[in-house]
Amino acid sequence: MQRVANCILRVNEHVLMLKKPRRGWYVAPGGKMEPGENIKDSVSREFKEETGLSIQNPELKGSFTFIMREEEQTAQEWMMFTFYSTAYSGELLEVSDEGELEWVPVDEVLKKPMAEGDREIFKHILSSDEQVYGTFVYTTDFRLIDQDLDPSRPE
Amino acid sequence: MQRVANCILRVNEHVLMLKKPRRGWYVAPGGKMEPGENIKDSVSREFKEETGLSIQNPELKGSFTFIMREEEQTAQEWMMFTFYSTAYSGELLEVSDEGELEWVPVDEVLKKPMAEGDREIFKHILSSDEQVYGTFVYTTDFRLIDQDLDPSRPE
Repeated sequence: MQRVANCILRVNEHVLMLKKPRRGWYVAPGGKMEPGENIKDSVSREFKEETGLSIQNPELKGSFTFIMREEEQTAQEWMMFTFYSTAYSGELLEVSDEGELEWVPVDEVLKKPMAEGDREIFKHILSSDEQVYGTFVYTTDFRLIDQDLDPSRPE
Repeated sequence: MQRVANCILRVNEHVLMLKKPRRGWYVAPGGKMEPGENIKDSVSREFKEETGLSIQNPELKGSFTFIMREEEQTAQEWMMFTFYSTAYSGELLEVSDEGELEWVPVDEVLKKPMAEGDREIFKHILSSDEQVYGTFVYTTDFRLIDQDLDPSRPE
């Protein structure tokens, strides 16, 4: 099973986002876990690779199951672990292999183009300290067809 | 990849533990996640099946990677998500298919026979509010040969 760990880094009311070239959608930097890795080691390694930055004291805020459905069948399933951090060290890469890095003002994050489920995740984690758990069901062209978030709304 | 979700239920200074028949080792009740399930739905379902109890507001406290090593190779890898709850509803099963259920006084939990890594997990979660992340490496006969916990000690 594919597993992804990423981190919402929020500093001075800006969030570091990565604009992926394919659809122009924004994501929190991160990437695929490697065999044998735990989720915290994974998010630190992946964030550094994509941005050049070492996140400090990342804390897990969201744990999600994603299902990609094709003709009523599960074509793919993966998990995503979303951390939150408010401090870093290091220098931001000028060029990332994965897309364009951008410090986005917090109140503009939700206006960026992104996967619908990711928008719900940003909404939660940027507005609540509570951990969130959820399941998202997508079509193979990334249209969100079902979601179940717990808690269903930020406090 | 095998994924397990379990919960430390602590009520009136007692912890509900399950004594597994094979080695007589104690564990926090829980079990294997099903395809498509998210970790919170999974822990609620599994805990109910094993104990008869519905845990209230379980919160994720520990996320772990386990590796079973055989002749320098990874024979198996799985993840475990350990929740914590302090309230429940329902009636405790008199007989569980999985072993003997027992309310253990908090100060006796660490004295019970159990996997060494599980002891570290109980120690952390019963003494700190902080989330913990870690990797445990076992032999195929469940001898702990390496561990990496983050944070390495409860606050």
